[in-house]
Amino acid sequence: MRQTARALTLTVALLAAMAAPTALPAAEAPVAIAIHAGAGTMSREETTPKQETAIRAELEHAVRVGHRVLTEGGTSLEAVQAAVNILEDSPFFNAGKGAVFNAEGENELDASVMDGATLNAGAVAAVRRIANPIDLALAVMTESRHVMLIGEGAETFAVEQGFELVDPAYFHTERRWRQLQEAKTAQTAARRGTAGRWYSTVGAVALDRDGNLAAGTSTGGLTNKRWGRVGDTPIIGAGTYANNETCAVSATGTGEYFIRYVVAHSICEHVRDGMSIDKAAGRLIHEVLPAAGGDGGVIAMDAAGNIAMPHNTPGMYRASIGADGRVTVAIYASP
Amino acid sequence: MRQTARALTLTVALLAAMAAPTALPAAEAPVAIAIHAGAGTMSREETTPKQETAIRAELEHAVRVGHRVLTEGGTSLEAVQAAVNILEDSPFFNAGKGAVFNAEGENELDASVMDGATLNAGAVAAVRRIANPIDLALAVMTESRHVMLIGEGAETFAVEQGFELVDPAYFHTERRWRQLQEAKTAQTAARRGTAGRWYSTVGAVALDRDGNLAAGTSTGGLTNKRWGRVGDTPIIGAGTYANNETCAVSATGTGEYFIRYVVAHSICEHVRDGMSIDKAAGRLIHEVLPAAGGDGGVIAMDAAGNIAMPHNTPGMYRASIGADGRVTVAIYASP
Repeated sequence: MRQTARALTLTVALLAAMAAPTALPAAEAPVAIAIHAGAGTMSREETTPKQETAIRAELEHAVRVGHRVLTEGGTSLEAVQAAVNILEDSPFFNAGKGAVFNAEGENELDASVMDGATLNAGAVAAVRRIANPIDLALAVMTESRHVMLIGEGAETFAVEQGFELVDPAYFHTERRWRQLQEAKTAQTAARRGTAGRWYSTVGAVALDRDGNLAAGTSTGGLTNKRWGRVGDTPIIGAGTYANNETCAVSATGTGEYFIRYVVAHSICEHVRDGMSIDKAAGRLIHEVLPAAGGDGGVIAMDAAGNIAMPHNTPGMYRASIGADGRVTVAIYASP
Repeated sequence: MRQTARALTLTVALLAAMAAPTALPAAEAPVAIAIHAGAGTMSREETTPKQETAIRAELEHAVRVGHRVLTEGGTSLEAVQAAVNILEDSPFFNAGKGAVFNAEGENELDASVMDGATLNAGAVAAVRRIANPIDLALAVMTESRHVMLIGEGAETFAVEQGFELVDPAYFHTERRWRQLQEAKTAQTAARRGTAGRWYSTVGAVALDRDGNLAAGTSTGGLTNKRWGRVGDTPIIGAGTYANNETCAVSATGTGEYFIRYVVAHSICEHVRDGMSIDKAAGRLIHEVLPAAGGDGGVIAMDAAGNIAMPHNTPGMYRASIGADGRVTVAIYASP
């Protein structure tokens, strides 16, 4: 039965190729990927030219690895995972290794992923012993009937799925520990929102040869966060959304505003209404959010592989390889 | 200064009333409320006529209490809270007292609330000692900078806000305990989804005299749930959404599908595109969700107080009092 179906598919494909000789062969179907690693007011004092060079190299590495997955015929989900894994493993970015500390001095990680072909999605929040939370979000999507698992329950699921639980010390970096101490001594300022001007989250969106979009996002959340605060990263519709019919989005910024305005889903709905990906993403980032007081940015990609990376903050770590093969790596408004 | 502003407001109101003698006096501005308490395949064997009468009485009580808040000049948020509190306190419904048990034999509660005037929102997930989770979601909205707090962190916040932590035994009801034992012995069936055909969640939407919409939802989640599973109830955009410009929605059903399709927000976006509340809510509940395999229903209200209560399950506990004062209480497709 399956073979018959396959033979039929091949026949149909053959007929289609004959009927449309100008159609691109599969190898030339467009692929594209974009990544981000946070947005905000970059303090030039805090980042030396040497560090900036290292960060740009890491962004380029991540986007190239994700892109290779696509050119070798991998799925957009695999490309998103590969790129986000590199950003999670890098101590530069607030996800996985290098995540910020909460008020109790712990690292509490959130992540989500969505498959634009099926609208399947997976998310985890407040996990503490998963080196690559995006992998666990994927497992929630593919290996459970659920979309969102949180806290210790999510880790129990991870163990059942064969994940290794890392020692929480794995996430420790001196820079983040120092940031927590600074946030605690300047707590009043932090509560006023003057600290934490860099909203660090990592994410990726991708389009594969089969025309499938995917999006994924991973974060350690806010430095010095309390009360089990969860931002937009693990919220499907807010921090992450993907639908082949519209677009794929991964967000970074003041999570609370991204939740209230359901930013990722809103961008995709504008695309459904006929807006370009540029205009749709720009509408949310440059009009809706600033009017409400929300800072940040998104990476967004439509079904043709067109990429928008708007941010209303002075900087956003980002990189992309478009359908035309052009590579961009940028931090500030102008690369 | 404040008094001057107030005098000015009164003057403006007076001038407006003089200029537009046909405008309704404040007391006659439309108010409306709708509530739900779950949807699914009602088993007539499990519910005696006496129980059904009691459930209808409880639904009517909740909607009337919420309506009185509105007619006495209260806000839509206050009306939503008052109605949901009654449903939470009732042992009949899966929220607050009477919540289902998770696989560990604990009650783990989720809730969210949203203010259509400001798009402020609050949500809690996996709290275990809060009698009325909707109250805590409201406190997250009004007393923190955050939208979502989870687990023990959310309870720490609750204590700081003066909430009393109840003994987890408060939530225990024999009926729910028996349901857990039945689910455990029929676990294979449950995993196939044949059990739990009643998706019990409670919620309310309301329109107040100032023209402000609000929505709120509260639940104990799924019987025998594992791994810290969270459904759509605490997810802004999925289970709850409110925006004065479009509509207010509270959902109940297979939460995973409501998350993937961002159901509450999608309905509001359709209203923004000019669709009636009936058609917009129907589109999601009768077209999008069934095509994907999702069961459930919503209560939805537009800015004029028009109410839609579609469900694609045989039954949904629901009640409403419209802008015309008409009271409805219903369980099945026909009341």
